[in-house]
Amino acid sequence: MAAVELGFDTLRWQEDCLVLLDQTRLPREERYLPIPDVPALVDAILRLVVRGAPALGCAGAYGVVTAVGDAAERQEWLQRLEAGATALRAARPTAVNLAVGVDRIAALGRRLADEGQGRPADWTARLLESARAFHAEDAALCRAIGHHGAELLPETCTVLTHCNAGALATGGIGTALGVVYAAHAAGKRVAVIADETRPLLQGARLTAWELQRAGVPVRLQCDGAAGSAFQAGLVDAVVVGADRVAANGDVAKKIGTIPLAQLAREFGVPFYVAAPSTTVDLGCPDGRSIPVEQRGADEVRGYAGAVAAPDGVEARNPAFDVTPAALVTGLITERGVLASPGAASLAAHCAAASSG
Amino acid sequence: MAAVELGFDTLRWQEDCLVLLDQTRLPREERYLPIPDVPALVDAILRLVVRGAPALGCAGAYGVVTAVGDAAERQEWLQRLEAGATALRAARPTAVNLAVGVDRIAALGRRLADEGQGRPADWTARLLESARAFHAEDAALCRAIGHHGAELLPETCTVLTHCNAGALATGGIGTALGVVYAAHAAGKRVAVIADETRPLLQGARLTAWELQRAGVPVRLQCDGAAGSAFQAGLVDAVVVGADRVAANGDVAKKIGTIPLAQLAREFGVPFYVAAPSTTVDLGCPDGRSIPVEQRGADEVRGYAGAVAAPDGVEARNPAFDVTPAALVTGLITERGVLASPGAASLAAHCAAASSG
Repeated sequence: MAAVELGFDTLRWQEDCLVLLDQTRLPREERYLPIPDVPALVDAILRLVVRGAPALGCAGAYGVVTAVGDAAERQEWLQRLEAGATALRAARPTAVNLAVGVDRIAALGRRLADEGQGRPADWTARLLESARAFHAEDAALCRAIGHHGAELLPETCTVLTHCNAGALATGGIGTALGVVYAAHAAGKRVAVIADETRPLLQGARLTAWELQRAGVPVRLQCDGAAGSAFQAGLVDAVVVGADRVAANGDVAKKIGTIPLAQLAREFGVPFYVAAPSTTVDLGCPDGRSIPVEQRGADEVRGYAGAVAAPDGVEARNPAFDVTPAALVTGLITERGVLASPGAASLAAHCAAASSG
Repeated sequence: MAAVELGFDTLRWQEDCLVLLDQTRLPREERYLPIPDVPALVDAILRLVVRGAPALGCAGAYGVVTAVGDAAERQEWLQRLEAGATALRAARPTAVNLAVGVDRIAALGRRLADEGQGRPADWTARLLESARAFHAEDAALCRAIGHHGAELLPETCTVLTHCNAGALATGGIGTALGVVYAAHAAGKRVAVIADETRPLLQGARLTAWELQRAGVPVRLQCDGAAGSAFQAGLVDAVVVGADRVAANGDVAKKIGTIPLAQLAREFGVPFYVAAPSTTVDLGCPDGRSIPVEQRGADEVRGYAGAVAAPDGVEARNPAFDVTPAALVTGLITERGVLASPGAASLAAHCAAASSG
């Protein structure tokens, strides 16, 4: 498959230091922030300098390497490892991937210290190797998702996407946008219509920026304008990411996804969900079992300090909605494309994935 | 029917002067702006101090009274009338209602001056009487729409609305919100979910304000959150206004309306359009004949002065979309409710209206 060159890194390890693209400065400025220690990373996570579940996992993995630093004595090395891992996990306790990345490297550290082979500096080098591998695995997942998804797109097409399931949310080329980048790299003429994605405007701030940066034609629209885009025949496919996929195929994703799925069906446009197979939660029978986070009213009343609504007006602000499996044309994972995902086919797909 | 008390006036004639509620200061401040002359009204129209087609019509009618002012000599009176009417019509040339209001009063003025009965001061008094009648007609249309629409709503219900088809857009209690106010005044327990309505946020700024001011429970949501509101069973009816209704029943309305109509049908919720029968354009066969205004990209790139998107990113910004007649459960006009409007029934409804 053709290599994808985006021109930016969401995160990288450079000269013994984790470096993050500061997403709080996007889209105005592309600035890279060196992360010298754990408090700096915790602060960066809290301020959303880095966000997106897979990207947080990678940052957490490198964070454990940062935690042990240059500790030369076993006891101190272990203490730093444990304190760092605890602090990092606590930075965003609901971000499962962050904990996964932290725990993977911390567990290796404990084993190395227990076995007592070599010096702490050697163990640190092993941790870095493992963090790089964790990062590389995430990048490979994105590449595979991109590859499988790109094959679904026509030679010339416009993809509608929502929120940011892009390189900025992962350690690779992204999931939904990974599909777009892979198709672009393969020579397809892909353009994107990006929903701005109220209330936090990830589409306007992040998706528009990264597509523009990567040289993929992008047009922004307000979320409500999707109906007219379908009606005008502008949309050839919808590709979105997923926060969680239930065992029956229901998809929890950023608020505003249901209307797109509904419109796609009405107008005969395929609706694809691109996500690693680990996003499928077989322990969650269906969408009704997924608790929906309700966020504060201020996000709806305004944006970035500009307040539009009357003081004190109530607001509904669910963080995501749950699209019924019946509206999903295909689930694109690193394993391939699962058409019309249902309970049986999803279980088989995931079993294949976990044994692979 | 029960009288509706809103607690505010969009416009009123007070002590020989047109007074406008300054909508540019909403929702922060309820300030009334006296309009001493035509340049002040033109400025107010340009700055959107007053907006909404019916409200502009009423303002234009009063504006002609303001134009002639205290002119005591026939020639001067007529000159002021013509110059004022021309300036007012030019303030927003595409606003048909503005021209209708201006022309109605200007035509009366010309006739009075031609007939030459009485003095200019008497003619001015007749113009004011006629402008008041024009305003009262608009208020009566809103009341009738509200009355008919209120009967459709259950005793306890939540109405979803989009944009601002409220008192702030008319000389009365509004069209879509007129239905809500009338039901509220009749003792029904009506609550409203208001879409914020990107890009210009009329829902957040105006609809939320006027419902709050009138004591009707209101919750704001981002436009994309409508899907989850239907899914959660929160919506009993959708009521929106209309910019234009084609002869076949297709409805041009603020961008973001199609997804609501589609979701309403999917979830078995009635979708009502509330508008005076003059909104039906029998000369326009269907929605494809309605030209859609494309507005500037900056409205999409930013939010109430805060800029979210990258500089120079392209944006789609259609001002409205066209909901197919098949998705409209009922059209509510001053004449009553027309279920599932189609070409034949609409023509009959409008014929009844124009002969009434």
